[in-house]
Amino acid sequence: MFQTFDDIADPTRGTERLALLRKELSQRGLDGFLVPRADAHQGEYVAACDERLAWLTGFGGSAGTAAVLGDRAAIFVDGRYTLQVRDQVDCEAFEPQHLIDNPPSKWLAGILQPGQKLGYDPMLHTISGVKRLREVCEAAGAELVAETDNPVDAIWRDRPQPPIGPVTLHPIEFSGEAASDKIARLQEILRAQKADSAVLTQPESIAWAFNIRGCDVPHTPLPLSFAILHAESAPELFIDGRKLSNAVRAELDEIVRVEAPEAFFVRLGAMDGQAVLADPAMTAEAIGRIVETAGGRIVKGSDPVALPRARKNAVEIAGARAAHLRDGAAFARFLAWFDAHAPAGDLDEIIAARALEGFRQETGKLREISFDTISGAGPNGAIVHYRVSHETNRAIEPDSLYLVDSGAQYEDGTTDITRTLVVGEPTADMRRHYTLVLKGHIGIATARFPVGASGAQLDTLARIALWKAGLDFDHGTGHGVGSYLSVHEGPQRISKLGTVPLEPGMILSNEPGYYRTGAYGIRIENLECVTGPSEIAGGERPMLGFETLTLAPFERRLIDVALLDEAERAWVDAYHARVRAEVGAELDMETRGWLNAATDPLTP
Amino acid sequence: MFQTFDDIADPTRGTERLALLRKELSQRGLDGFLVPRADAHQGEYVAACDERLAWLTGFGGSAGTAAVLGDRAAIFVDGRYTLQVRDQVDCEAFEPQHLIDNPPSKWLAGILQPGQKLGYDPMLHTISGVKRLREVCEAAGAELVAETDNPVDAIWRDRPQPPIGPVTLHPIEFSGEAASDKIARLQEILRAQKADSAVLTQPESIAWAFNIRGCDVPHTPLPLSFAILHAESAPELFIDGRKLSNAVRAELDEIVRVEAPEAFFVRLGAMDGQAVLADPAMTAEAIGRIVETAGGRIVKGSDPVALPRARKNAVEIAGARAAHLRDGAAFARFLAWFDAHAPAGDLDEIIAARALEGFRQETGKLREISFDTISGAGPNGAIVHYRVSHETNRAIEPDSLYLVDSGAQYEDGTTDITRTLVVGEPTADMRRHYTLVLKGHIGIATARFPVGASGAQLDTLARIALWKAGLDFDHGTGHGVGSYLSVHEGPQRISKLGTVPLEPGMILSNEPGYYRTGAYGIRIENLECVTGPSEIAGGERPMLGFETLTLAPFERRLIDVALLDEAERAWVDAYHARVRAEVGAELDMETRGWLNAATDPLTP
Repeated sequence: MFQTFDDIADPTRGTERLALLRKELSQRGLDGFLVPRADAHQGEYVAACDERLAWLTGFGGSAGTAAVLGDRAAIFVDGRYTLQVRDQVDCEAFEPQHLIDNPPSKWLAGILQPGQKLGYDPMLHTISGVKRLREVCEAAGAELVAETDNPVDAIWRDRPQPPIGPVTLHPIEFSGEAASDKIARLQEILRAQKADSAVLTQPESIAWAFNIRGCDVPHTPLPLSFAILHAESAPELFIDGRKLSNAVRAELDEIVRVEAPEAFFVRLGAMDGQAVLADPAMTAEAIGRIVETAGGRIVKGSDPVALPRARKNAVEIAGARAAHLRDGAAFARFLAWFDAHAPAGDLDEIIAARALEGFRQETGKLREISFDTISGAGPNGAIVHYRVSHETNRAIEPDSLYLVDSGAQYEDGTTDITRTLVVGEPTADMRRHYTLVLKGHIGIATARFPVGASGAQLDTLARIALWKAGLDFDHGTGHGVGSYLSVHEGPQRISKLGTVPLEPGMILSNEPGYYRTGAYGIRIENLECVTGPSEIAGGERPMLGFETLTLAPFERRLIDVALLDEAERAWVDAYHARVRAEVGAELDMETRGWLNAATDPLTP
Repeated sequence: MFQTFDDIADPTRGTERLALLRKELSQRGLDGFLVPRADAHQGEYVAACDERLAWLTGFGGSAGTAAVLGDRAAIFVDGRYTLQVRDQVDCEAFEPQHLIDNPPSKWLAGILQPGQKLGYDPMLHTISGVKRLREVCEAAGAELVAETDNPVDAIWRDRPQPPIGPVTLHPIEFSGEAASDKIARLQEILRAQKADSAVLTQPESIAWAFNIRGCDVPHTPLPLSFAILHAESAPELFIDGRKLSNAVRAELDEIVRVEAPEAFFVRLGAMDGQAVLADPAMTAEAIGRIVETAGGRIVKGSDPVALPRARKNAVEIAGARAAHLRDGAAFARFLAWFDAHAPAGDLDEIIAARALEGFRQETGKLREISFDTISGAGPNGAIVHYRVSHETNRAIEPDSLYLVDSGAQYEDGTTDITRTLVVGEPTADMRRHYTLVLKGHIGIATARFPVGASGAQLDTLARIALWKAGLDFDHGTGHGVGSYLSVHEGPQRISKLGTVPLEPGMILSNEPGYYRTGAYGIRIENLECVTGPSEIAGGERPMLGFETLTLAPFERRLIDVALLDEAERAWVDAYHARVRAEVGAELDMETRGWLNAATDPLTP
């Protein structure tokens, strides 16, 4: 099993470790130190050796920061984690603070004293982040001190070694473009931006550019490494050689210069006179500082790989379709199994999550799950980023809703699907809420939009039906998805913050929801691929649109047909007919029978 | 009549005046000079003495800039004016350039030579604008030189005097809040922003803050003046005393210190040690420079009056309702007149615009029209910012569409309405396009949205029906509207650029359109007032919404009922029933009969 259900939090060690850290800081002449949940790559998942925040505080969430001063310490988490942090962290030792409303920079502004020294690890904070911190320190008359040797590591005795997961090649049958061609394209981008080089620190970008994959962090096939692109010469890849088999190294030698991780800093220190492209919001501050100290110049710009990676080519799109068909068949088997067993009342969240992973395993192609399955029964479904553990595990009860948000990593594509299921009889409110969320989902799925339109311009289509009913959901409508890469990929997104124009080949999730705290959660998620621009009969301007990749029935028993208009009903029926035809062909007779019933037209 | 139909452009003098200006520049040791269509207040309408661009080039549009160098000169206009500029300007003398795609800063970057001196009038360019220009000049090795004595004025022999329109008081029965209370509120804002003072240069802001109105520019009841708010003492108003009757001056003396316009610069020069709030995008660069030279500090922030002015109070909203009812009755008389006369084929654009102004005059309350009526027959309706003149005047022909966008200034409110009418038989396409635009209009009118939502989040609701048909329109969906002030008021707007949250009491236009070049234009515009937040049955979150202020029937003959869904049909019928009841009560029997027919339910 890829998913574990252990309680990873341990609040009992906080006080002791905090004391150790304070002693270490005092020996270094520091008055404080920041411990972000981050590694040098600023990714969503970090290796065990980089889980400094969890080790220090017990907090197991995917975003947060601790600030430790001589007499006070605080942990900053966002709205997702305000309840969880009180279970996982000794809040006597670490005062919980809201990461957005009262971020470390604001909190510190009111506390730092003139002459104090605040330490930070310059590999774990971005150029932009340090700029903000430095302003706060200067305003308070305090000093911000870069500690290249992290004081947490000095006291963390059994700290794991950095991972050395084997690197694999991502073959052309899945990538659709040779790494040498990608590199040539990227070099064009560098020249257009008048940059001599670009520092790549996002593992997704390095993996995409060089057609490699790895397994250094959970759930995302990433090798951790650094790279430098050069406008006029071969790129350099700084990676632990133990990750490379002879065969992989031989292939890599054709396209990059492979060097040791330590050589990365030496190389940055030799950038005299070079214009070096780096994204200040993603690049470790240490990198910018070394380049500038060496006499290089940082050209601020976004990661040059981000947009080329986001626009999937025809081979990647074909791979995504195949992955979703395979995943859809596994998911249909799960749904049929659920319908057969849930009414007896024997299921719980862990049993269901294990069963779903099992059906995916049986495809024989599963490389990983793309994130820990959110398996939420009843009120747990209303916790947007719920992770089930043995302690929180809840029975799936009669006459309740069950929300399951899950995904798979296949070599041909990454999937991410959410369905909300009913056991027994739904209430009228459950059906009304489900149908309003479905209307929002259809609003996105059926949207057409001009070239240049951004995800921000579409977000409201997922909400307007809920808004008119006095309801809303407190998360974005959709995130970008990689191709056998991260399930959360930028820059494309459907959200009021999504200002990047949507382009053909981008894959995004479409996942409006509704959450009734203490009762149930509803979310309906398909992945969509941007298509077009194409002509519309009677129209004048070619429009973009979406091809739905995910293939799984909605919960017919939760649809209040009277709340759908004719076009919405027709869309559901057409989608269900497609699921029946495409997924049905992949199924055994029994599951196919179940699918036929589940995809019956709403309007016979 | 407030509207004239003369051709204001005169391209024949361009070459001669350009030569005069070049001679003047050469005497001053300048290699070039910029002539923006702007005054020191950066408003939409400028006084005749500030129409330097029109005098120099002949161009009569509301936005543009000329750049004059020794051997080349260019005029920069946006997409609205690319055709018009070729009629109005001698394009041998002034090369037309696109203001957005190739703005002066970009054009100059490729032309300026090291050592050259480019002049500008620092009262006509904003702080932000000069910053961009300075960067361009520095990159080219050229010098940007502030000419406080505008060289155009030196050669413009018959330049009109600055206007001295009489100032009137805007009484509490229309403003709803005493100026002294407004000033106290603004002082709170200054203190919150840690500013000692704020420079007000937008006449709308000064008029609102001190409850005064004027008539220095066309169509907007503005007195041109400057003001300085002080956090801890009375504001200063710098205005030509000839605009003030004894009675008005006596009232003003109670709330402000009235000073001569010349004293403004003296006062700015005495700002040593003061923190002075100013909006860099709206404030003349000269002002920032004088303050900083004097040892003051500019606190960059938006105009502190903008948001308080945008949130109309209960008295202003009641005034808006009364103004729209009065305007609706005049407009109904116009529509009935149009229906009676248009089929005979005797009408043209000027006759119709004059008739409409006449019906508004007959209310006895018309103070001004709020902008030149856009009276567009057939293909002229497709020109978004069309202004009819004797030369362009077009007959309103049978079986054609006629677009009329107009508004009034009443003391209790400013109106702005667009209707698209049909003469004779519409084509199926005309009806389809009209109905798609109407669907977008209804999408905005019926929207509900959470507190904090911006106009950018609503804009797509006005477009999605058109997008799905492969159509779109190339302007924002809505602009803010003042209260017996500017018909174009910020910061509220419905547009992908409208990032300001909508708040109760804000008034916005709702005006989606469709334009078939060379054939016809369609636009449907009502003004909407933001209402709420209010509870919705079965909902959890109070939502904002819109109250439609404008009261006039849509063109039933252009509605293809089959394209509307049930909720849309019900909304049109309910709106028409409201128009019939409210406006009908204001009408003579004959017009009421017409209105009853025009507001017949779509679904009997």
